[in-house]
Amino acid sequence: MSTQITLYTAQVSPYAQSVEIVLYEAKAKYTRYEIDLRNKPDWFAAKVNPIGQVPAMTYGGPEVPPDQPSADSLKMRESIILLEFVAELFPEAHLLPSNPVLRYKARLFMDILKTKAVPAWYGYFLRGEPVEAVFSALKELQAVLPPTGYVAGDFSIADAEVAPFLVRMSVMLESELLLFDAKPGEGNAVMEILREQQFERLTRYTHDVMDRPSFKATFDKDALVDTYKKWAIIMREEKRQKEKQS
Amino acid sequence: MSTQITLYTAQVSPYAQSVEIVLYEAKAKYTRYEIDLRNKPDWFAAKVNPIGQVPAMTYGGPEVPPDQPSADSLKMRESIILLEFVAELFPEAHLLPSNPVLRYKARLFMDILKTKAVPAWYGYFLRGEPVEAVFSALKELQAVLPPTGYVAGDFSIADAEVAPFLVRMSVMLESELLLFDAKPGEGNAVMEILREQQFERLTRYTHDVMDRPSFKATFDKDALVDTYKKWAIIMREEKRQKEKQS
Repeated sequence: MSTQITLYTAQVSPYAQSVEIVLYEAKAKYTRYEIDLRNKPDWFAAKVNPIGQVPAMTYGGPEVPPDQPSADSLKMRESIILLEFVAELFPEAHLLPSNPVLRYKARLFMDILKTKAVPAWYGYFLRGEPVEAVFSALKELQAVLPPTGYVAGDFSIADAEVAPFLVRMSVMLESELLLFDAKPGEGNAVMEILREQQFERLTRYTHDVMDRPSFKATFDKDALVDTYKKWAIIMREEKRQKEKQS
Repeated sequence: MSTQITLYTAQVSPYAQSVEIVLYEAKAKYTRYEIDLRNKPDWFAAKVNPIGQVPAMTYGGPEVPPDQPSADSLKMRESIILLEFVAELFPEAHLLPSNPVLRYKARLFMDILKTKAVPAWYGYFLRGEPVEAVFSALKELQAVLPPTGYVAGDFSIADAEVAPFLVRMSVMLESELLLFDAKPGEGNAVMEILREQQFERLTRYTHDVMDRPSFKATFDKDALVDTYKKWAIIMREEKRQKEKQS
């Protein structure tokens, strides 16, 4: 019998989808538990991840219901570290190339996402900071890609990490779900630029990842848009209340 | 003949020392080039690392003088990714354990340093934000350590990454080199707390890493203090000029 794995995840989170993608690619047997991020159960921070974020994982210990985690399992967090862990646990899935230079490229790609693209996107999406920082981060990601295929040749954890974020960015733009006081149509105007020739390589790459069964099986666009819309209403209301108070 | 490695480094940088430590542990043949971080040569950003930070590495290509980097070498950056690269390039040095759970622990340790301890320290050191955030980050690091020895059993890249930062923090506190308007003696008062029983495990751990030949060979405390003192004078003057202008 294989060691038990429980993944605490959420449809909206790109990082949680990343881990679901690699578990699918690895044909891992695991229990999936959806956490409502706007209404987290108390036991989640208390017994699984003190930081309260998804993805989180329990590994080992007895088979228990996910909402009654055992004290005897290892509690794990941080998407990139979980991806490396899954890749090492299932070496036969070849989720990282064996060549050190290609592994470097895969990790650099994830690092650019985390340190450049994510902060630039949140600056734009939440606070209306210049969208040029997003374009510049996306070009930096694009520059790491080879002319065709995945970032490190074969599909790897780096593709699982980066593509779900890029896809969610597009969905938010197309659905005009920007949380600063954007002009109507701004999201689609930015999306038009991202469809230009200057981002052609990154667009093609993103579609290559989206075409994989592992992506399709772990992604539900309609459910995502529904949740984003609900959140946008709540978050805009919270913002209004805050501005009223100050 | 082995593939050429050139490391662009700086005595002051904990992350640069981390890479020097693992290259030493791996008995790697490499060329060391010191970058003056307050006066970087133009070719460094142009030809080695566009971000201008150390550590940076060139790998492969012809043997060339470090200040005339070849277009044919791979240009590499980001300390943690470089550490993983060196560990994979020299597997016989066992710089990461083979057990996936221990590898997870090593990577989580590095992640806590990067996402918790470093921001907390800079908040305190540069802007006088509450030192409690530093204590809390250090306790989080300490909680990952086993009762004795290194974070993942045998010495690993995670120890090489974390200890140089902890050591520099102590040196700055003992030398009263805090860049906000701290009261005289504040650095040593904080250091006293770090010497208490509550941080005993982390202190012992740090000394274990400092005792290794690889740490000793890549560390010069007197030179470090000299540089910090020079920088502190320059940075305080820059701060004063800025405040004058606004």
